[in-house]
Amino acid sequence: MNRNFDFVSDKRLEGQLDFIIEIDKLKNIARKSMVFDGSHFENDAEHSWTISVLAILLREYANFNVNIEKVIIMLLIHDIVEVYAGDTFLYSAKRSAAHIEEEKSAEKIFGFLEEDQKEYFLSLWKEFEERKTNEAKFATVFDRLEPLVQNYMTQGGTWKKYNVTYQMVIDKTSHIQEGSKEIWDFVKKLLQVCVERGYLAKEE
Amino acid sequence: MNRNFDFVSDKRLEGQLDFIIEIDKLKNIARKSMVFDGSHFENDAEHSWTISVLAILLREYANFNVNIEKVIIMLLIHDIVEVYAGDTFLYSAKRSAAHIEEEKSAEKIFGFLEEDQKEYFLSLWKEFEERKTNEAKFATVFDRLEPLVQNYMTQGGTWKKYNVTYQMVIDKTSHIQEGSKEIWDFVKKLLQVCVERGYLAKEE
Ligand SMILES: [Ca+2]
Repeated sequence: MNRNFDFVSDKRLEGQLDFIIEIDKLKNIARKSMVFDGSHFENDAEHSWTISVLAILLREYANFNVNIEKVIIMLLIHDIVEVYAGDTFLYSAKRSAAHIEEEKSAEKIFGFLEEDQKEYFLSLWKEFEERKTNEAKFATVFDRLEPLVQNYMTQGGTWKKYNVTYQMVIDKTSHIQEGSKEIWDFVKKLLQVCVERGYLAKEE
Repeated sequence: MNRNFDFVSDKRLEGQLDFIIEIDKLKNIARKSMVFDGSHFENDAEHSWTISVLAILLREYANFNVNIEKVIIMLLIHDIVEVYAGDTFLYSAKRSAAHIEEEKSAEKIFGFLEEDQKEYFLSLWKEFEERKTNEAKFATVFDRLEPLVQNYMTQGGTWKKYNVTYQMVIDKTSHIQEGSKEIWDFVKKLLQVCVERGYLAKEE
């Protein structure tokens, strides 16, 4: 392992610093969708920032009380595993195989930290992935919502490029309603408008 | 004002959505320093993500108990005013004049939201800027820390480019100690190493 901070004698702090250097690679991991103005493909760090702000902004629409601190921390770190595993498109056939890679990646990246912090972040990441707690259900809303709005803003974006249909989108995103009925109502309306405007193909 | 979501009948929600589209412009606002691997100039969204993660990661070094939720939210939104005001270099002579522009910008950008949310974000932004509360003091640590580490990782980066000296850096960053004595100890060591390695010029 590269020692970026060889002058630091405290091993705990050195690990924390090396961790922040390592996760910076997310800034070079491009996602499939473009930022709202279509100027560039979004990277994982930009994505994590937007969905964290979204959760703060739209917290009033949660179906239940949530610990918003936990929601935000989950969203800020949920993509860190992609430092080694890369981004896998939601509609890709490889999406379920990707999970094994991500588990390995999580062990490696959070392994930069001492046991207590490693366990803390690993458990938050797993909680997010399992989508069983209220916080995980609410956090997932924003991870799904952002690309939908990006595709709307860019007149179809990845949907057109990869032949994604209305029913495929519904299948992959309908669990938004488990976190927020109000946001799911908005999404249904958004998708309808996308079909009407020709951004998204709907099966007969 | 552009109505991006003309099909949404709820004015509150429509304002929230327009707000998230507007602040996305931060992804096109380049800062002066490069990301840790030197691959590109960092943008404001990437910066906000990194310093939020840093605050979570290094919270144990705060000089006092902090409400970490508040710290993170401050860090996630602290640069939103730059959507209209742009980024001003910490060592620029224009730095104090920039504040008036930022006040106007804050009114405008948070004005997308209804009064309660506008006030909530405005007051958090002002609290951060004034650096009087424990949360603001601790949050500021990371806004200052990140570019120092970026310049270390890129062998001098903006310090060399803009002839910034050791004493100028100390003057602009010594308030880090108000938020965290341990992180300030690290910074002093880091700067010393930067001088020894020729990344940062020190006056005789
Ligand atoms: Ca700034």
